[in-house]
Amino acid sequence: MGAIRVDGDSPTLAIIKTELQLAANGFLDKNLPLAFDHQEEAARLIISKQTPSGWDPSAKGSLGREGYRLLKNDAGVVWVAADTDIGLLYGTFKFLQLMQTGAGIPESGYHSEPKIQHRILNHWDNLNRTLERGYAGASIWNWHRLPDHIDQQYHDYARANASIGINGSVVTNVNANALVLTPEYLEKAAALADVFRPYGITLYLTARFSAPMELGRLPTADPLDPGVQQWWKDKADEIYRYIPDFGGFLVKADSEGQPGPHNYQRSQADGANLLADALKPHGGIVMWRAFVYSEDTPDDRAKQAYQEFQPYDGSFRDNVIVQVKNGAIDFQPREPFHPLFGAMPQTPLMMEFQITQEYLGQATHHVFLPSLYTEVLQSDTYVNGPGSTVSKVIDGSLHGYSLTAMAGVSNIGTDRNWTGHHFHQANWFGYGRLAWDPEISPETIADEWLRLTFTNAPEFIEPVKKMMLQSHEMAVNYMTPLGLHHIMAWSHHYGPGPWVTDRHRDDWTSTYYHKASENGVGFDRTASGSNALEQYAPELQAQWGDPKRVPEKYLLWFHHVPWEYTLQNGRTLWDEMALRYQKGVDEARQNVATWESLESYVDEERHAHVFSFLEIQAKEAAWWRDACLLYFQQFAQSPLPEGVEKPEKELEYFMGIRHRYVPGN
Amino acid sequence: MGAIRVDGDSPTLAIIKTELQLAANGFLDKNLPLAFDHQEEAARLIISKQTPSGWDPSAKGSLGREGYRLLKNDAGVVWVAADTDIGLLYGTFKFLQLMQTGAGIPESGYHSEPKIQHRILNHWDNLNRTLERGYAGASIWNWHRLPDHIDQQYHDYARANASIGINGSVVTNVNANALVLTPEYLEKAAALADVFRPYGITLYLTARFSAPMELGRLPTADPLDPGVQQWWKDKADEIYRYIPDFGGFLVKADSEGQPGPHNYQRSQADGANLLADALKPHGGIVMWRAFVYSEDTPDDRAKQAYQEFQPYDGSFRDNVIVQVKNGAIDFQPREPFHPLFGAMPQTPLMMEFQITQEYLGQATHHVFLPSLYTEVLQSDTYVNGPGSTVSKVIDGSLHGYSLTAMAGVSNIGTDRNWTGHHFHQANWFGYGRLAWDPEISPETIADEWLRLTFTNAPEFIEPVKKMMLQSHEMAVNYMTPLGLHHIMAWSHHYGPGPWVTDRHRDDWTSTYYHKASENGVGFDRTASGSNALEQYAPELQAQWGDPKRVPEKYLLWFHHVPWEYTLQNGRTLWDEMALRYQKGVDEARQNVATWESLESYVDEERHAHVFSFLEIQAKEAAWWRDACLLYFQQFAQSPLPEGVEKPEKELEYFMGIRHRYVPGN
Repeated sequence: MGAIRVDGDSPTLAIIKTELQLAANGFLDKNLPLAFDHQEEAARLIISKQTPSGWDPSAKGSLGREGYRLLKNDAGVVWVAADTDIGLLYGTFKFLQLMQTGAGIPESGYHSEPKIQHRILNHWDNLNRTLERGYAGASIWNWHRLPDHIDQQYHDYARANASIGINGSVVTNVNANALVLTPEYLEKAAALADVFRPYGITLYLTARFSAPMELGRLPTADPLDPGVQQWWKDKADEIYRYIPDFGGFLVKADSEGQPGPHNYQRSQADGANLLADALKPHGGIVMWRAFVYSEDTPDDRAKQAYQEFQPYDGSFRDNVIVQVKNGAIDFQPREPFHPLFGAMPQTPLMMEFQITQEYLGQATHHVFLPSLYTEVLQSDTYVNGPGSTVSKVIDGSLHGYSLTAMAGVSNIGTDRNWTGHHFHQANWFGYGRLAWDPEISPETIADEWLRLTFTNAPEFIEPVKKMMLQSHEMAVNYMTPLGLHHIMAWSHHYGPGPWVTDRHRDDWTSTYYHKASENGVGFDRTASGSNALEQYAPELQAQWGDPKRVPEKYLLWFHHVPWEYTLQNGRTLWDEMALRYQKGVDEARQNVATWESLESYVDEERHAHVFSFLEIQAKEAAWWRDACLLYFQQFAQSPLPEGVEKPEKELEYFMGIRHRYVPGN
Repeated sequence: MGAIRVDGDSPTLAIIKTELQLAANGFLDKNLPLAFDHQEEAARLIISKQTPSGWDPSAKGSLGREGYRLLKNDAGVVWVAADTDIGLLYGTFKFLQLMQTGAGIPESGYHSEPKIQHRILNHWDNLNRTLERGYAGASIWNWHRLPDHIDQQYHDYARANASIGINGSVVTNVNANALVLTPEYLEKAAALADVFRPYGITLYLTARFSAPMELGRLPTADPLDPGVQQWWKDKADEIYRYIPDFGGFLVKADSEGQPGPHNYQRSQADGANLLADALKPHGGIVMWRAFVYSEDTPDDRAKQAYQEFQPYDGSFRDNVIVQVKNGAIDFQPREPFHPLFGAMPQTPLMMEFQITQEYLGQATHHVFLPSLYTEVLQSDTYVNGPGSTVSKVIDGSLHGYSLTAMAGVSNIGTDRNWTGHHFHQANWFGYGRLAWDPEISPETIADEWLRLTFTNAPEFIEPVKKMMLQSHEMAVNYMTPLGLHHIMAWSHHYGPGPWVTDRHRDDWTSTYYHKASENGVGFDRTASGSNALEQYAPELQAQWGDPKRVPEKYLLWFHHVPWEYTLQNGRTLWDEMALRYQKGVDEARQNVATWESLESYVDEERHAHVFSFLEIQAKEAAWWRDACLLYFQQFAQSPLPEGVEKPEKELEYFMGIRHRYVPGN
């Protein structure tokens, strides 16, 4: 009679016991009784930081702050080993995953340590429970009821994150409200931190740069002003009295109306260092966002972050990390990697991915984002020669960063299924997996997620995995093929809007980005245009600067080309663009049929939910196709090629569509 | 081997089958196999509009559009009988309730028909999913995803309502947005109506009076303008093309900034009749709210609705019903019944209760509202002599109304438990039960709800029922004892604010209502004051006009009395007020202890949730007590009587509290 042995007592170990108890009622081996037995001999599953007798201590090795090892001896006894409680929790989750998916423990054991230190969710959640760019209901943070009421959902949230290795949460919007730094709200934040702590999750807050003026009544927020510096030091001291393991600040400054060091003719480094100095005595970090661009659009928006940050490489304190979006514009369906990656060897850079789906169909379009993440992570910057991938920038190995991090902008809300679309749970999951190990393949992630979420039946796994893996390319095709970008509707970015023009900010309009005319389409970012290309390594300049060598997926990102331009497959640009839009629609429709055929593998409620969202996606893919092709056809002045459906409405119809109360604004 | 027989096929009958299947896995007799057997002989439970062979057809009787009868023969076979499918559904729910609570079918059978025709929930939900005065998360209506995605929650909502007899839902806010009357939104509303229909629930919308101008570009919304009349007729025709069984409009006009007939010097009857004429050909009704009062506060706010409506008694079309809040101010913890009840014999009046808890602690304070509802419903108007209760006005029996209705302002949101506080489900439940039968006692409702929600164990039922039944009086005591009213914080009405004064509307301030000074406290509504009392029957004028005869719970509602005024128990007004505040606090604390002691009867998650809310309530009860007593003590200039705890903070502290982002605004 075997049993489970969990050595020691702590809040985290209590969570491990609860997880094992929950699992025992479900998928664990029925022959594994759930007596937490302290008699070593009897145990068949041992969760312990100490080496059980009869085991070779060297087999465990050193596992760091978060690593773990699963070991199995000849008698089939499994040891989940780690140096810390949180390592044991991660190991337990992995053990359970291997059980549930039927993989089992490899004979040689299983070892894992995260490649990135800080694996963080960013919540763009406002204190009034609205969300910016959140599409799955209201914010799960009920600030009004905190700190007195700790909702079960906070525990569930922490548990879900821990199970996929996420170890940090910025609970407030980057468009920040200084109020969260007041005692009233710090007490509330501390209550959340208390829930997160045993799950190994650190709480961070967003800091509004002008807080010393708004809260402290100072006349300035100048980062070089001693009074301002003292205010932030005092504020940091105060925060750590509430939250002793507070993680630090995430800051959006000098961007889209947010205050920042520019207001005082100071640099981004001056701004970041101000906060870093305040946090330093307590061990906190500053995540300073590179998403800085001017509303006066003096230059190509794609170039501005680089211009703003690259000259200051090496000027940041050692507890600052610069948080860079995956691309230089803004979470487009597809973008080349951000030119800052590889360009700041003296300054730790972290990745900011979006998990939520602004510009990407929001909650109702199935887009498996690990494909996008991996495309970016595996991009070669060439800065230290071939193989200098973005993932190696991020994991610190390329430049020897001592601080590493990844952020994902959360897609979580109060929807019953957390993420609006059931399949968007896979993006939360996949983000966590890639933050742990940026080299994991999208195939592996999709496979794991499907097994953990639905079933191990291959008749279900194979077609649905295929659907997931092609979904990103499909969405790019029906939205922005061939390097098109930012041609969405105004402000809420829901649905097509290639005609958006002449608004108060050029760099928020579509015509600024596609530059379509009878002469052609695309943004010339070569030397003959904005020369954003010069921000990349020479190898990439040579390749991407040549319209014949640039990957066609980036063609219109870097080049303005005529409509009759001939692509590698011999088609004209116009014909290929039209056929790609059609391909996206065709695949979205095929997904509906595929999913319908798999009804018997999924419970009725989830099947119906996903089905109706896939139908919405297919309908909206056609909306995108028709609106964009009718718009661009004005300039291309060519008929639709064979195989592309004729739109049922005129362009004016699509231009007249006005959606109000789109979520996420 | 018995079985269940459900005769016929319809969406409603399919729901009945599903309910029986769900129940079979839970609390139904395990010996009742769930074969839906059409062989009459074998059935032990028969759900049918037809008389089964062997039964006396006269035993069923005529049951109307929604009534049902449960019958049992000597062999123990149960027949759920009705004249309609929806009657069968109501009967099935009652059958299941009697099974679950262990009551069983009485030997003599069970018969029920609703006493009120239209039993309606009012959702003050905005199209962007915010709620006005909703405290349980966001709106459950996801307009953005409608009509393409029908969320399971819409079905669950309809099911819950049908199970308690609610048969109508106004899905939009009374502070109305005309957009909901456009084709885009009518298509969405129609999708909801399709879900509701088989559950016997009719969909209604709120109509913005100025819609002809906003949507139709007319120069006026004057109800006597032929163009306006035609616009509404056309709009009604259009709505019924989308929703053939559309219920009609709920209208808030000439109130708190809403447009209305006053803008054109027309009466409320002119306004209501305009819409009624448009709906009449289709069978729709207008629920025209009496909550009309002027921001210029020319007279006691309590008098204005009566002044506005009573003179027009008999001037309304026969498909208009005037919707009157239970009291003349606004959903206070306690109010005398509204003087319009009994005053309009020629015009159907319906009751508007709030289920949500503006002014009443919002989501976190446990207040069992059926106590409040029943206090109002059983109030005697005396208009046709003693026994002329408000319930008899509402059920139509007093004046022979041909149209009867009750509305409850919903407390439903996206919170996992629907209502924020688990116990606020009891208010939704209780509202439904009283709308079906206004004579049911709060004791019965509490007993039914506890058994259906938690357990039949008397060790749990008795103390918790007691807690529920005393909770309304408790809340009145710690908020507004002895007839005090509307002394809450500004705008969001969360927490105490007796000091609120000098704002842009007198009638939204606290000092307007309590009129405290060194001379005394209370609003003189007798002949020496505003004489709001004259709107009641002479019997009540005589009783309530005399400070010695008025029930002390209404004392300060009708009288301004000195602080040293002696009450029936011999105490001074000041001492009694202080002791009542203390009593409310004591009981709120006792509830925490009571609930804690019952841990073994409730699952851990719900127990913890309720416990933390009860703790919040006890804490906030003390906040109310301290803030109000310190404030009033300035005028009373007397010490706190023995038994009342001394506040730990000064008045200035309480006056300085500023809560931001309070839900429901």
